[in-house]
Amino acid sequence: MNPRSLEKILKDLHRQKITPQQAMKKLQTLPYENLEFAKVDHHRGLRVGMPEVVYCQGKTVAQIKKIIQSMNRVGLSVLATKLSKDNFRKLKSSLPKISEYNETAQTLVIEKNKRQKKSGLIIIISAGTADIPVAEEAAVTAQLLGSKVETIFDVGVAGIHRLLDNLEQVRKARVVIVVAGMEGALASVVGGMVDKPIVAVPTSIGYGTSFGGVSALLTMLNSCAPGMAVVNIDNGFGAGSMAHRINILGDSPGTE
Amino acid sequence: MNPRSLEKILKDLHRQKITPQQAMKKLQTLPYENLEFAKVDHHRGLRVGMPEVVYCQGKTVAQIKKIIQSMNRVGLSVLATKLSKDNFRKLKSSLPKISEYNETAQTLVIEKNKRQKKSGLIIIISAGTADIPVAEEAAVTAQLLGSKVETIFDVGVAGIHRLLDNLEQVRKARVVIVVAGMEGALASVVGGMVDKPIVAVPTSIGYGTSFGGVSALLTMLNSCAPGMAVVNIDNGFGAGSMAHRINILGDSPGTE
Amino acid sequence: MNPRSLEKILKDLHRQKITPQQAMKKLQTLPYENLEFAKVDHHRGLRVGMPEVVYCQGKTVAQIKKIIQSMNRVGLSVLATKLSKDNFRKLKSSLPKISEYNETAQTLVIEKNKRQKKSGLIIIISAGTADIPVAEEAAVTAQLLGSKVETIFDVGVAGIHRLLDNLEQVRKARVVIVVAGMEGALASVVGGMVDKPIVAVPTSIGYGTSFGGVSALLTMLNSCAPGMAVVNIDNGFGAGSMAHRINILGDSPGTE
Amino acid sequence: MNPRSLEKILKDLHRQKITPQQAMKKLQTLPYENLEFAKVDHHRGLRVGMPEVVYCQGKTVAQIKKIIQSMNRVGLSVLATKLSKDNFRKLKSSLPKISEYNETAQTLVIEKNKRQKKSGLIIIISAGTADIPVAEEAAVTAQLLGSKVETIFDVGVAGIHRLLDNLEQVRKARVVIVVAGMEGALASVVGGMVDKPIVAVPTSIGYGTSFGGVSALLTMLNSCAPGMAVVNIDNGFGAGSMAHRINILGDSPGTE
Amino acid sequence: MNPRSLEKILKDLHRQKITPQQAMKKLQTLPYENLEFAKVDHHRGLRVGMPEVVYCQGKTVAQIKKIIQSMNRVGLSVLATKLSKDNFRKLKSSLPKISEYNETAQTLVIEKNKRQKKSGLIIIISAGTADIPVAEEAAVTAQLLGSKVETIFDVGVAGIHRLLDNLEQVRKARVVIVVAGMEGALASVVGGMVDKPIVAVPTSIGYGTSFGGVSALLTMLNSCAPGMAVVNIDNGFGAGSMAHRINILGDSPGTE
Amino acid sequence: MNPRSLEKILKDLHRQKITPQQAMKKLQTLPYENLEFAKVDHHRGLRVGMPEVVYCQGKTVAQIKKIIQSMNRVGLSVLATKLSKDNFRKLKSSLPKISEYNETAQTLVIEKNKRQKKSGLIIIISAGTADIPVAEEAAVTAQLLGSKVETIFDVGVAGIHRLLDNLEQVRKARVVIVVAGMEGALASVVGGMVDKPIVAVPTSIGYGTSFGGVSALLTMLNSCAPGMAVVNIDNGFGAGSMAHRINILGDSPGTE
Amino acid sequence: MNPRSLEKILKDLHRQKITPQQAMKKLQTLPYENLEFAKVDHHRGLRVGMPEVVYCQGKTVAQIKKIIQSMNRVGLSVLATKLSKDNFRKLKSSLPKISEYNETAQTLVIEKNKRQKKSGLIIIISAGTADIPVAEEAAVTAQLLGSKVETIFDVGVAGIHRLLDNLEQVRKARVVIVVAGMEGALASVVGGMVDKPIVAVPTSIGYGTSFGGVSALLTMLNSCAPGMAVVNIDNGFGAGSMAHRINILGDSPGTE
Amino acid sequence: MNPRSLEKILKDLHRQKITPQQAMKKLQTLPYENLEFAKVDHHRGLRVGMPEVVYCQGKTVAQIKKIIQSMNRVGLSVLATKLSKDNFRKLKSSLPKISEYNETAQTLVIEKNKRQKKSGLIIIISAGTADIPVAEEAAVTAQLLGSKVETIFDVGVAGIHRLLDNLEQVRKARVVIVVAGMEGALASVVGGMVDKPIVAVPTSIGYGTSFGGVSALLTMLNSCAPGMAVVNIDNGFGAGSMAHRINILGDSPGTE
Repeated sequence: MNPRSLEKILKDLHRQKITPQQAMKKLQTLPYENLEFAKVDHHRGLRVGMPEVVYCQGKTVAQIKKIIQSMNRVGLSVLATKLSKDNFRKLKSSLPKISEYNETAQTLVIEKNKRQKKSGLIIIISAGTADIPVAEEAAVTAQLLGSKVETIFDVGVAGIHRLLDNLEQVRKARVVIVVAGMEGALASVVGGMVDKPIVAVPTSIGYGTSFGGVSALLTMLNSCAPGMAVVNIDNGFGAGSMAHRINILGDSPGTE
Repeated sequence: MNPRSLEKILKDLHRQKITPQQAMKKLQTLPYENLEFAKVDHHRGLRVGMPEVVYCQGKTVAQIKKIIQSMNRVGLSVLATKLSKDNFRKLKSSLPKISEYNETAQTLVIEKNKRQKKSGLIIIISAGTADIPVAEEAAVTAQLLGSKVETIFDVGVAGIHRLLDNLEQVRKARVVIVVAGMEGALASVVGGMVDKPIVAVPTSIGYGTSFGGVSALLTMLNSCAPGMAVVNIDNGFGAGSMAHRINILGDSPGTE
Repeated sequence: MNPRSLEKILKDLHRQKITPQQAMKKLQTLPYENLEFAKVDHHRGLRVGMPEVVYCQGKTVAQIKKIIQSMNRVGLSVLATKLSKDNFRKLKSSLPKISEYNETAQTLVIEKNKRQKKSGLIIIISAGTADIPVAEEAAVTAQLLGSKVETIFDVGVAGIHRLLDNLEQVRKARVVIVVAGMEGALASVVGGMVDKPIVAVPTSIGYGTSFGGVSALLTMLNSCAPGMAVVNIDNGFGAGSMAHRINILGDSPGTE
Repeated sequence: MNPRSLEKILKDLHRQKITPQQAMKKLQTLPYENLEFAKVDHHRGLRVGMPEVVYCQGKTVAQIKKIIQSMNRVGLSVLATKLSKDNFRKLKSSLPKISEYNETAQTLVIEKNKRQKKSGLIIIISAGTADIPVAEEAAVTAQLLGSKVETIFDVGVAGIHRLLDNLEQVRKARVVIVVAGMEGALASVVGGMVDKPIVAVPTSIGYGTSFGGVSALLTMLNSCAPGMAVVNIDNGFGAGSMAHRINILGDSPGTE
Repeated sequence: MNPRSLEKILKDLHRQKITPQQAMKKLQTLPYENLEFAKVDHHRGLRVGMPEVVYCQGKTVAQIKKIIQSMNRVGLSVLATKLSKDNFRKLKSSLPKISEYNETAQTLVIEKNKRQKKSGLIIIISAGTADIPVAEEAAVTAQLLGSKVETIFDVGVAGIHRLLDNLEQVRKARVVIVVAGMEGALASVVGGMVDKPIVAVPTSIGYGTSFGGVSALLTMLNSCAPGMAVVNIDNGFGAGSMAHRINILGDSPGTE
Repeated sequence: MNPRSLEKILKDLHRQKITPQQAMKKLQTLPYENLEFAKVDHHRGLRVGMPEVVYCQGKTVAQIKKIIQSMNRVGLSVLATKLSKDNFRKLKSSLPKISEYNETAQTLVIEKNKRQKKSGLIIIISAGTADIPVAEEAAVTAQLLGSKVETIFDVGVAGIHRLLDNLEQVRKARVVIVVAGMEGALASVVGGMVDKPIVAVPTSIGYGTSFGGVSALLTMLNSCAPGMAVVNIDNGFGAGSMAHRINILGDSPGTE
Repeated sequence: MNPRSLEKILKDLHRQKITPQQAMKKLQTLPYENLEFAKVDHHRGLRVGMPEVVYCQGKTVAQIKKIIQSMNRVGLSVLATKLSKDNFRKLKSSLPKISEYNETAQTLVIEKNKRQKKSGLIIIISAGTADIPVAEEAAVTAQLLGSKVETIFDVGVAGIHRLLDNLEQVRKARVVIVVAGMEGALASVVGGMVDKPIVAVPTSIGYGTSFGGVSALLTMLNSCAPGMAVVNIDNGFGAGSMAHRINILGDSPGTE
Repeated sequence: MNPRSLEKILKDLHRQKITPQQAMKKLQTLPYENLEFAKVDHHRGLRVGMPEVVYCQGKTVAQIKKIIQSMNRVGLSVLATKLSKDNFRKLKSSLPKISEYNETAQTLVIEKNKRQKKSGLIIIISAGTADIPVAEEAAVTAQLLGSKVETIFDVGVAGIHRLLDNLEQVRKARVVIVVAGMEGALASVVGGMVDKPIVAVPTSIGYGTSFGGVSALLTMLNSCAPGMAVVNIDNGFGAGSMAHRINILGDSPGTE
C-alpha cells in the first residue's frame, strides 16, 4: 500500500463512501513504514540518504548487472563494493557506460546528481600498504555520500614518528577513520592524540595469530582511548558511511 | 620538560647565553606532545576535553580515593565507573562531600564548573531491563560531558511494536546509542529505521551461547545497516564518550 | 496510540471534522503493529498466545515482584524461570498467594484460567540426572502453555538399552524434546529412531572440553538425523515453548 | 535377521522342532529394531517417512551414481543435496533419465509416486539474495516430502518494512523457516511477530566476524523470541525436513 | 522384560499355549539388549565389568547417598568421583560404614568381593604436583577395577633427567598413563621413549593461555609420538578405566 | 657415539690404557639413549617396533623419494600416509618397484619381512562413507604392524539398527576403532555396548558447525562411556598404531 | 645413579674387577643427564642458574612450607610467586624468619648468598596501574636473579606523551619488559622506538573482549615491531627470567 | 621538519631575528622523533639498526620492485620475506642484479656493506623437516643482521636422543631459536636443558587440532621452562631479529 491508496481510503471516508469501521479494517493491514517510504517513492536508498549499495562478493555478474540496471531506471546512484577486476570487465562489456571503477578499492561508482557542496573533512589513516584497499573503500564510500576525504597511508606504530609528522593534518578533520590489520594498535595511538570521533576498521591483513583480522579487532574494541567505535573486519564501506553520517552533523547549525 | 623550561631555553638562546648547538642538543630530548600538553597544564583530561575517568574494577578503595583527591586538587571533574555500592560507601566515609552516586550505573560523578548549555540530544535505547546498567553508564557519561540524553528502555525486538511506538522520539536525536545483550538484534533493527550515527553496545547479559556478550557483539559487527559502529562489551562509558564527541560536531556552525 | 484513538480519527474524518490531509498526517505516525496489539489490549503475552515469562537471573527480588504484580493486575498468567529458592522465599513473604514453585526446575507458575483441554503429548527425554532441571523447565513451560507432558529421565547413550526399553512410549508423542549435556549424543540416537519433530536442548552439564554445553550443542547441530532443531544451552523454556507451538498444530483438523 | 527368520524360529518352536532353550539362544542375537525395520523391508528411507538423502559434497560422481541406481532398483525417491552443476552433468551422461536438477539449490530430485495431496503451507523467508541457495534447498526438501512451500526472499532487517509488507502472507503458514547469514537478526524479528513454530537456518554468508555463519548461528540461538529452534549452518535440508515433520502434524485431526 | 519373561513366552509357544503370531507380537517390543542384561541381572555395572561410578559434581549429598544405598542393596562396588571432603563428611554421618575416602583424588570407594589376583602393571606419570589429584583419580579407578598401579609424580619436561632416571621403571608397565597440565609436553616425551600404549590426560592446571587445560589437550592430540590416545581434561577416571581395559588384555593367553 | 665407541672406551679402561678419570670425562658427553639405539642400529623405526612412517602432506615428491630410498637401503618397512594419487604416480615413475598404493587410504606400503603370525583382531567401525579414507588409513597401519583387521562401514547412529546388526562381530575384537565425523556420536554408542578398549577418531567430515572435526572431537572427549580414548582429527595412522600396541598385549601370556 | 656410582664402575673396570661387558651393561641404564646434574649436586635450581621457583597458586600452605624447608636445608634461594597475603601470614607463623614478602607482586623471596655485582639494567614498563602486580613480579624475579631493574608505570598509549617523556631512560636499558593488558598496544609502540630486545607480557586486565588477556596477547604476537617476543598472560616471572638471561649476555666480554 | 630547519630556527633566535615567542610557536609543531630520525636521514632501517624488511605476501610484484628500487637508491640493505619463487622470477627479469634468493626460506637478500665481523652464535633447532622453511627464514634474517648461525634440523621430541646427541653444540650458542609445529613440545624440552635465552617459533605445520599453529603456540606460551619467549606463528623473521638483538648484547664489554 502506498500513500496514494491511503489517500484514497481517507478521501472515501471523508466523502462518506465508506464507514469508519470499513476504514479501520483496511488500515489494520497498512504497513507502518510504507507511509514514509511512499514519500520517497519506495526507495530505501533515498530514504536513508544513501545510494544503493551492492555487495558483489558471491553474486554473479548477471545478478550485479540486473541490480545496476534497476537502479539506473529510477535514477539512483550505485556503489558496488568488493567487485573484482574480472567481474568489472564483464559488466562493462554489457553496460559500456559504467566507468568509475577503482581497482584498489574494488569499487564501482555510478553517481547521479553530483552534490555541489561537500561536507567537512574525513581523514582516513591506514597502518600498512596492505591496508590501503580497505581504506580506499572507505574513501570512495564517504566521497560518494558527499564528504571531503583525505588519506594518510603507511603510518603504522612501528615508526610512530610518521604519525606524529602528520598530526597537524589529522587534527583538521571532523572525523577520523583508522584502518589497520596485524595488531591494530594504530587506532589506540591515534585515539590518544586527537579529540575527534574515530571509526576504527580492523583488516584481515596479517598471518598466524592475526586470525584473519580478529587480533586487530580485539585491539580496537579494547582500546582505552575514548571516542572510538569499531566496524566489521575489512568493512571499509561501513566505516565510510558511519563517518559520513557523523560528518554531516557538523554541516548544519546547532539544530537539536 | 614543561613550557617553562622550553621558554627558558629559548630565552637563554635569545640572550645568547647558550649557543644554537647547545639549544639543539637540549631540544633533541624534548617530548613532542608536551609542548601542547603544557598549554593545558599537563592535564590529559582537559587536553582531550574530558573529565578524568577512573575505572574502579580491580582498584582498591585506597587507590580510588587517592586518584579522586588528586583530581580535586587541580579542580578536574571526575567520572568513576564500575564502582560498587560497597566501595562507594567506604569512599564516602573518608570523602564525605562526594554524593552523585548512581547505583544502577555504578558511577560516581564529581562535576566541577557545570556547563550551562547542553549539546544536542543523544537517545539511548536498551533491549532488556538487564541491559539498563550499561545504558545508564552511557547516559551518565554523555551527560557529564555536556550532552542532552533521553533513554528508552526495554524495547527488544521480540516485541518490535514497542520500538515502532517510539520511533518519532528516536528520530529527534543527533546520535543514537543502542544497548543490547543476548542476540543483540536491536541494533540492526534500529539501524534500518533511522539515518543518524548509531553507537552499538553489546552487553554480557544472556546465558549459554551468549558467551558473555560475544553473540551480541558479533551481531552488531555483522549488521548490514549502514551508519553503525560498535564498542567493547558492557562499555557504556565508551559509547557515551563516542556519542558525545559526535554530538558536539552538531553544536557549532559548519566549520570544517 | 490505541484503537480508540484511531477510531476517533476516523470518526472525525467521517463527520468531516478533519480533512483527509489532517487525517493522513496523524496516521503517518501510527505504529503499524499497534493496530493489532490494541485488539489484545496491548498485552504481548496474550497476543502471541503465551503467559508473560520473567527470566529471573540477574533481576532483583524487588524487580521480579513488581513485574508479577503488574501481570496480576491484568489477569495474565506468569512463568518465572531461573528463580532460585532463596529468591522465591523472599517473594513469597510479600506475595503470600504464590505457591507453584518447582525447586528442581527453578520455576514459579501463576496460572489464570486453567485450560480444560490439553493438547497432544510431548515426551521429554533427558540423558543424565544432572540434566533434569533443564528438562523440568521445559516440562513446566509446555504444561502451562497447555500441552500434555511425560518425562523419561536418565537414558543416556552409555546404556542405550534404557532408551530402547522406552521406545514404545516415545513413539506415542507428537513432539519429542531431548535434553542432554556432556557429549549430547542422545539427540542423534533418538533422531534415528522416531519420526516426530525433535527439539534438542544442550545443557551445560559436564567438565573440561564440554565447555559449558558447547560440546553438546555442536553434537546436536551436526546430527545427521533429520527432523531435529536445537535451542540455546540450558534453554528449557525455549524448548518447551517451541514444542508446544508444534504440538498445537495437531489439535485442530487440517486447516492450512 | 528379518521377520521371516523370526517367524521361522517361532514356528519351529511351536511345532516343537526346537526347544525353548534353543530358541532363546537364537533370539539373544536378534537385533531389536530389525523386527520393525523388516516390516518396512529394510529401507530406512521408508521407515522414517523420507526419501533417501545423498549428501554429495566429498563424494565422487561414481559413488553418487551407484547410490542413485541402488535407490532406483527398490523404487525409492532420492534427494541429492550439495550437488554441483559439473557433477550433475557427469551424472546425467550416464543416468540420462535424471532431470530435476535445481542449480540454485544444488539439488537433484528423483521422485517416485508423487503424492497427490500436499500438506499445509511452509513459508521460507530469507534475508539476503545470497541466502537464497540455502532457502531453495529447504524448499526443495519440504516439497519433495509433501509440503506446500512459498518463499519470500530479500527481506533483511536493514529494511524492515519489506518484512512488514509481507506479514499477512507469513501468518498464513503453519511453519516458518527463516534463512539468514551475516548477523542473522531476521529470525528474532520474525519470531516477535508470528506465533507459529520457526525453524531458523544460519548461513555462511558474510565476511570478517561472520566467521562462516557462527555470528548468525549465535544470534538465532540467543533469540529471546519464543517458539524458535535452529539447525546447522547452511543446512537447508535439515530445516526443510524439520519443518515438514511439524507441518504434517496439522494434517490429521487431533490424534494424540 | 527379563529373561524369565522371555523364557515364559518361549515355553508357552512350545507348549502351544500361544500361537507363533502371538509370540511374534510380544517379541516385537522386546528390548534387544535386555536379553543380555538379564543374564547379569539388569546391572550395567556388572555387564561391562565395572563398578557403578557416581560422578558427584553437581549432585546433592542426598542424591549421592540414595545412589550408594541402591548399589549397596544389590551388592555392587561403587566408585564415587569428584566428591569433596565436605560432602564426604555429610555422607559419612548417615552412612557410617563408608571409609575409603581419598582426599587427594576426591574419590570414595566401596569395594565388594575384592579380587585376589591383580592384572599387570599400569604406571601413572604426572608432570607437576598440582596434577596429582587427577593422577590419583586414575590410580584409584584402575586399582578398584583390578590393575596393579605405580605412580611417578613431578617429572615434568623442564627437568627431563627426572624422567630419564625413572625410565627403567616406566618400561616395566603394560600401559602408561601420562597426566600433565600447562603445556602437556610430557606425553610426547614419554611417547618417544616407550613402546607401550599411552593414555594421556590433560589437566586444567595452569593460567593464562592454558585455557583450563585446552593447551595441554591440544599438545597431546597433536603429538607425533605413535601409540597414544587422549581423554577429556581432568578425566582421571576415564584414563584409569581405559588403561585397565587395555591392561586385562595381557592377562589371558593369546585368545583372539 | 655408537656402541662400538663405548666398547672401545671400556676396553681401553679395562686394559688400563686410559684412567677412570679420562673415561669419566668421555662418558659425560655420551647420549643416554644412544646406548639403546645402538642395539637397534640407530633405527628409531625398529627400536619402537614400527616401520618408518612418512607423513607426505607438505613434502615434495623429491623429498618423499629420498626418504624411501634411505629406508630401502637399510631394509626398513615404510608406511607413507596422506600420499595423493598424483604424487604416487610421480614416485612410481622413478621407484618402479613400489606398488602397494591404497588410493582410498592415500597410503603407500613397502613391507619387508612380512610377519607370518598376525596379532588378534581389531575392528574398525566408521559412521559414514565419507569417513572411510581415515578408517582405511587406520586399517592399513594396523595391518602393516601385524594386526588382523576387519572393517564395518556406514553404521552411523541415524540408523542404529545397522550397528546392532553387527554387534556380534564387534564383540569378537580385542580393540575397536571408531571413526566418525559430523557429530561423532557413534563412539559413545559403541562405548555403551562393548567392553573392549575403544580408540575414537574424529574426522573432518561435515560442514558448518562441524568446524573441521572439532564437533566430533568434543563429542568423543566428553563421552561418558568408559574405556575410550581419542586421537587427533583425521589421524587414522595414530588410531591404527595405538590399537596395534594395545592388541599385541593380548598375544603373549600374562607377563607383567 | 650418581657420579660416585659411575666412578665406582669405572674404577672397578680399571682394576679389572669387572669385565668391559659387565660395565657396558651397567652403563646402558645410566641416565645421561645425571652425569651433569651430579656436578651441581642434583639441584636443578643451581644447574640452570636460578633459585627454585614455587608457583603457589593451587598449592596448600602445608605444601609450600614443605618445599621452602627443603630448599632451606640445601641452602637454595627461593622465589615463591602468586602467594596470597593470607597464605603468607600462615606461612610466617610457622616459618618466622621469612620476611621479604611483596604484597603487590605476591612474591616471597628467600635469598641466600646475595650477589655483590648486579648485571646491566632491565627497564620494566607497564601500561596501567592494574598491570603493576605483574610488572612487580617480573621486577622481583629479575632482581633476585641478579639484574638491575627500573620500573616506569602507567604509560599507556592513550597518553603517549608519557612514554615519550621517559624515552631517554628506556634507551639506557639492555633489555625492556613491556607489561600491558586491555589492547596491549604499548608493546608495539615501545618496539617502534627502541632497538633493544623487548619481552612483552600480556596481562589479564580488562573486560568484555579482553578475554582474560587474549586480546593483549594477540596484539603482542602480531606486532610488526622487530626484536620482540612474548610470554604467557600474567607471566611476570617468565618475563623476568627471560630478560635476566638476555641481560647477563652483556656482562661478559664478547665470548661466543 | 628536519634538523636543518630546527637549526635555522635556533640560529635565527640566537641572531635575534625572531623572538623567543616566535620560536616557541614554531617549535610546538615540531615532531619529536624527527630530530633523531633526521640524523639518520629519515631511514627507519638505519635508525633501529636493521635493513628494510619487505613482507611480500599480498603485495604485487610491481609494489615490491618499487620498494626495492627505493632502498637501492639510498643504499639500504633489503630483506624480502615470504617471496614466492614465481614472484622472484618476475622481479629478476626487471631487476637483473638481484640474486640471493633462498627458495626454502622464500627470502631475497640485497646486502650493502657486508659486515666483516659476525656476532656470537645463534643455534636454530627445528622439530620436523616441514618446519625448515620457517627456520631458514630466521637463519637468513639473523645472518643478514650480522649473527653467526648454525642449524640443527629434524630433532623432534618423538626421538629425543637426536636432541641429546646435539646438546654439546646447542650449549655453545648465545641464543637458541626453537622452531616447531604440531604439538611444539621441543621448545619445552630444550628449555629444560640449556640456560640460554630461547626464542620459540610455532609453525603452522600439522593438521586437525594443530589449528594452523595454535596448538604449538599454546604449548610454547605455557612452557614452564624459564628463559623462553615466543613470536607469532611462522614468524621466522621475528625470531631471527629478536635473537640477533639479544646476541649483540654479548659482543661488547659489560656496558650498562
